[in-house]
Amino acid sequence: MKITILNGCNFTPEHIDRLKAIGKVNIFNDTKTEAQAIERIGDSEIVVADCFFTPLNKKVLSSSNKLKFIVLNSTGFDLVDLEAASANSIMVANTPNLCTDSVAEHAIALMFAVNRKLLVADESFRNNPLQPDADPFSEESRRKYFGFDVRSKTMGILGFGNIGKRVSELALGLGMKVIAYNRTPKTEPKEVRFLSFDEVMKTSDVISLNMALSDDTRSIINSQKLALMKEGSIIINTARGGLIDTDDLYDVLKKNKIYGAGLDTVVLNDKSHPILKLNNVVFSPHIAAFTNESLSQNLPRIVVENIEAFVKGEPINIVN
Amino acid sequence: MKITILNGCNFTPEHIDRLKAIGKVNIFNDTKTEAQAIERIGDSEIVVADCFFTPLNKKVLSSSNKLKFIVLNSTGFDLVDLEAASANSIMVANTPNLCTDSVAEHAIALMFAVNRKLLVADESFRNNPLQPDADPFSEESRRKYFGFDVRSKTMGILGFGNIGKRVSELALGLGMKVIAYNRTPKTEPKEVRFLSFDEVMKTSDVISLNMALSDDTRSIINSQKLALMKEGSIIINTARGGLIDTDDLYDVLKKNKIYGAGLDTVVLNDKSHPILKLNNVVFSPHIAAFTNESLSQNLPRIVVENIEAFVKGEPINIVN
Repeated sequence: MKITILNGCNFTPEHIDRLKAIGKVNIFNDTKTEAQAIERIGDSEIVVADCFFTPLNKKVLSSSNKLKFIVLNSTGFDLVDLEAASANSIMVANTPNLCTDSVAEHAIALMFAVNRKLLVADESFRNNPLQPDADPFSEESRRKYFGFDVRSKTMGILGFGNIGKRVSELALGLGMKVIAYNRTPKTEPKEVRFLSFDEVMKTSDVISLNMALSDDTRSIINSQKLALMKEGSIIINTARGGLIDTDDLYDVLKKNKIYGAGLDTVVLNDKSHPILKLNNVVFSPHIAAFTNESLSQNLPRIVVENIEAFVKGEPINIVN
Repeated sequence: MKITILNGCNFTPEHIDRLKAIGKVNIFNDTKTEAQAIERIGDSEIVVADCFFTPLNKKVLSSSNKLKFIVLNSTGFDLVDLEAASANSIMVANTPNLCTDSVAEHAIALMFAVNRKLLVADESFRNNPLQPDADPFSEESRRKYFGFDVRSKTMGILGFGNIGKRVSELALGLGMKVIAYNRTPKTEPKEVRFLSFDEVMKTSDVISLNMALSDDTRSIINSQKLALMKEGSIIINTARGGLIDTDDLYDVLKKNKIYGAGLDTVVLNDKSHPILKLNNVVFSPHIAAFTNESLSQNLPRIVVENIEAFVKGEPINIVN
């Protein structure tokens, strides 16, 4: 059995040893082009790949008749040509649920950072460290710093999959009320009140986007939906940038129609987009999953488990 | 009855109306010097004051024999000469518990901001918005961004008063284990394991300081105690800067002996102290209490309640 690792997986020597017990292991970690992928796959039976870096299209997937199994180092598989994989009798496995905790916690981290103005606060302190105490009774302080207690406020979750559900648990744990919308109606857990999309937009103090991106959901958050949000409310996106129309969001943020936004993903076509100048936004460069548990422990563990299961003839996490 | 407001309280017209129902109300809001305080107190029976801005010393407190009641716009009263107040038959009331939720939530906000490197993340995204996705498998990303899932980690609380207790509830709500130290031994709540100070330092993934500052606790967090902390752990201070020896903390942060610190209060004698250059610290300018609930709702409400209770002859929240 020949196993080829096209892209990084944060494998430790222990993980590599488990793979070596199965077959010959080739490690590249930096595959990017179609040509590289085809050459490196060669006559491997099993390939580990990152569909964000390496094109897994019809040409690549038809390049070898030895290839039987591709393990992705991600939960998402929207960039893989699954039809071509199936046509060539290649099974494709993903790594589900590897970052549920970290992404949900990142949503909460962004909520607090936006609410408590932590970017402004840190900059202000570093610039004026010797007379640091802000005056709690000035109009300036109120405008610059005053957030809200999240206790008893309403968290609205759009998309109630694994991550949305975990966001609901964290919000309940912080003493918030939780409402949610899910495309497929849900009734559980009972602490969560399921409402229509628009009712969630209207009623929430904090909105967390946790739905998948598809043709149906692209720009689902646009000026019409943003106009429903409560004054002083916050929107958090740890899902996909394409869910939000960036220009429309900029407009309500600029006019302080809402309190702020926390964006781990955002679609931008211009590096001088004015949203980048706003101080009521906290950005992060798509790092919601970046914890040791998700990427250094869960990810390589699940990839190795997928390969061991496939070799035993009991494949798991197959998506095609 | 004459009521004089020396310093701001975020009163709304409704609060002022309740005071006007009791007597003549003079509003200054900007009293700072001894001379101003004496002149403005004049023949008032009731005074609202901010002991951080207005000196409430023996001279001021002995300046009038009409003055019967001082209401502070803070929980803290360490800057008031209570002996002089009592000697002049002046009752002093504080506003306890006004910011328990906001300070406890700010501790959690700082924990997440430090853990998920939100300052570095935001700066990085704004500088490079068009190729935003950090590579999850590079050594650079790991060093720059990788935090930890807080679920199942241990929160250690030093000082288990109202705020420490609320921090414990929030941490439990996030799925953390909670250990705590309190000067007066406690056994409740049962979800919290009470340990010695040093055991809390040694065992915690996140340490939250929630104790009062006194001669006994000044610089209680010094190089000796910091050396007990786990590698990769975080310390949060939303209490008083004087609890930590800043130079000693700088030393362990600089050497990455611990993961990071979140500091709402810090003692600095030099505006070019090197701790101000570290990117594993999140600072805020003593704004843990800065929420609408604490300062625009609870604070003026409690001040007015204190005055109404005093006038009814049933004074509350008296500290002398």
